[in-house]
Amino acid sequence: MKGNIFYAQSGGVTPVINATAFGLIDQFFQNRKYFGKFYAGKNGILGALNEELIDISYEKKSELKLLKQTPGGAFGSCRLKLKDYVKSKREFERIYEVFKAHNIKYFFYNGGGDSQDTTNKISKYFKTKGYPISCIGLPKTIDNDLPITHCCPGYGSVAKYIATSTLEASLDVKSMSQTSTKVFILEVMGRHAGWLAASAGIIKTQAGDPPHLILFPEIEFKQSNFLKKVKDTIKKYGYCVIVASEGIRSKNKFISDSGLKDSFGHAQLGGVAPVLANMITSKLNIKVHWAVSDYLQRSARHIGSKVDVEQAYMLGKKGIEYAKKNISDVMLTIKRIDNKKKFQWKVSHAPLSKVANVEKMLPKNYIKTNGYEITKSCLNYILNLTEGEDYPSYSMGVPRYASLNCKIVNKKLKRFNL
Amino acid sequence: MKGNIFYAQSGGVTPVINATAFGLIDQFFQNRKYFGKFYAGKNGILGALNEELIDISYEKKSELKLLKQTPGGAFGSCRLKLKDYVKSKREFERIYEVFKAHNIKYFFYNGGGDSQDTTNKISKYFKTKGYPISCIGLPKTIDNDLPITHCCPGYGSVAKYIATSTLEASLDVKSMSQTSTKVFILEVMGRHAGWLAASAGIIKTQAGDPPHLILFPEIEFKQSNFLKKVKDTIKKYGYCVIVASEGIRSKNKFISDSGLKDSFGHAQLGGVAPVLANMITSKLNIKVHWAVSDYLQRSARHIGSKVDVEQAYMLGKKGIEYAKKNISDVMLTIKRIDNKKKFQWKVSHAPLSKVANVEKMLPKNYIKTNGYEITKSCLNYILNLTEGEDYPSYSMGVPRYASLNCKIVNKKLKRFNL
Repeated sequence: MKGNIFYAQSGGVTPVINATAFGLIDQFFQNRKYFGKFYAGKNGILGALNEELIDISYEKKSELKLLKQTPGGAFGSCRLKLKDYVKSKREFERIYEVFKAHNIKYFFYNGGGDSQDTTNKISKYFKTKGYPISCIGLPKTIDNDLPITHCCPGYGSVAKYIATSTLEASLDVKSMSQTSTKVFILEVMGRHAGWLAASAGIIKTQAGDPPHLILFPEIEFKQSNFLKKVKDTIKKYGYCVIVASEGIRSKNKFISDSGLKDSFGHAQLGGVAPVLANMITSKLNIKVHWAVSDYLQRSARHIGSKVDVEQAYMLGKKGIEYAKKNISDVMLTIKRIDNKKKFQWKVSHAPLSKVANVEKMLPKNYIKTNGYEITKSCLNYILNLTEGEDYPSYSMGVPRYASLNCKIVNKKLKRFNL
Repeated sequence: MKGNIFYAQSGGVTPVINATAFGLIDQFFQNRKYFGKFYAGKNGILGALNEELIDISYEKKSELKLLKQTPGGAFGSCRLKLKDYVKSKREFERIYEVFKAHNIKYFFYNGGGDSQDTTNKISKYFKTKGYPISCIGLPKTIDNDLPITHCCPGYGSVAKYIATSTLEASLDVKSMSQTSTKVFILEVMGRHAGWLAASAGIIKTQAGDPPHLILFPEIEFKQSNFLKKVKDTIKKYGYCVIVASEGIRSKNKFISDSGLKDSFGHAQLGGVAPVLANMITSKLNIKVHWAVSDYLQRSARHIGSKVDVEQAYMLGKKGIEYAKKNISDVMLTIKRIDNKKKFQWKVSHAPLSKVANVEKMLPKNYIKTNGYEITKSCLNYILNLTEGEDYPSYSMGVPRYASLNCKIVNKKLKRFNL
């Protein structure tokens, strides 16, 4: 009896995680004779724990095809980190029972660092049971912070969105700066690493171009120096564009955690941009506009990067080839092909044990010594990942995104209480 | 001696105001024998007051052509409303002197309601001087609040951006809702009229689809009813997507003005979304994500609506035809051609006196009686304006937007102190 596949999406979703799902599914259809069923976990690994397995054979092929252009996690994702075998023994045992009951012999987990750790743990647990299974990690994270792989699917598209949005808003504020708003602040994601904030830097081609100040979480925020830079920039160029990571901090605290309170005295939720705007207005008496892109950046598939979409898709496609060979305990990676002037890449792999729980920060030589700009090396790295457009098809004025039935297969086990 | 043209951009800029500028310029080039020079005011009407006239003959034709795909105001805009003849006599007189000195016989003012009022006043002032000039208003505003014209250039593109962004972020929060964020709030522009918030409604095709709640400035915000709706929506569908106009207000005050203070005790700048997020988290104990699109929406030319770009361009193009006939005191309009099933339109005109200072609100029958959704009539109206894509060309991963020299012609008059 041929083994079935279980695929799950994990953690924060991206504009292209479904492209990886479609890569798998597409190649699965080309290799029907090697495999049984293709199941996707409803809400990630929760789908295994709750025995909620989506059978994709009930989906229209035309809708499945749309996955390549659909943001979000089409099967649902979750934030749930398994602890060690002792503390999470019940969960590991349950996953084992569910996989055994449904003859799962191939496990694909599509996520970031935490998920690679989970995949690694599951593989080890199944080994103790003597149950043969291929456990393969598929990378995904807009944060671009996984090690070994040249880059992470999702990053290139979000970088393209941030760079484009910064360019567009810069033209706006520049137009208005003579009599109205002189400062524009865009807040982007990135709690620990400045990869996303850095992406705005690719629109700068000469001194004076926006963004004038990039605020990285890697660099300590110093209010007086920052305000001086804002003032100088306006004096010199008439306006100032700032791109700020949500995770910037001064010596003692996160900037977003600056004591904002509402009228009931509740601490206000996040938001670095309004805090910076308030700082500039109150100290420099200058009109400021600010935007917080939040989920918009993470789901902006309408401006997907061609290379990013292609990498995401190929990682899925190659995943099936690895499964066919019963390879296990690896995360697939993007490997840059060296000795080529033009950026070329291929899918490769790394041991799960080496990628689990390692965070790749923005290299020191990617930030200029002034602490507010990216270097040429950083520019070249990002430009390779934002290259090309991959537009979704449209219907009724908006992109046509996949709509799945998500039919759950009949349960064979008793209910599990999380 | 052939008369020169003076064109100026006014007020908040849009993704397509430069398409109108290019429509004028393009048609000007086809009609060189009728006109002298084409000047654009640097920073709108300030360009007239400061005698800063940009001579477009110094620009590369290839860059001018890119104006059709470039957001912002390429010649600069301003926020400056002229008062009546008595209070602003100095300014009217100055404009007269500058126009006379530079032989301006055609004045195009590209803006919203205030600008149409200014155009009307300038025309009347020049009549008292016996100076022949064609004063033509070109509509522009993402707020879509000008009367008589079927719609305003800029609105369709911003509506497309808001609808697409809402759709994308909805897929994201839906994926995450089982174990993490259950509510997403998008704040959009619109202080008085709900046209922009309404645009998110076009993505709803059946009950349960996002956006679940649209908050219009036309409808009084009632906290308890709102919170009940949020709770009910999550219970029924698992997540809740809210699109809020920046201008929503309760009986007594703007919601954005809810007493948020920073650690220094300064009132916090704007932002309805964080206030609503705080309300939901503190009252319902639910994880919320929020985004403020601000200038991103107003400049998102990368997702321009085809019909919007075409209308903006045609209004400029036809402007030259009106000037050739020495027509004055009109604002050009978009007129829907009746008795056609499919949306068809042409450029028409209305007397400036009838458009100045009139605000077109969202019609009562465009909002459902529950106060949180748009009606079928509203849907059909908006769909006509968001139809089709008009992608800019790209270079280095981002859209290739026009870069102008903006060479100022030699001054002939003394400096004017504003």
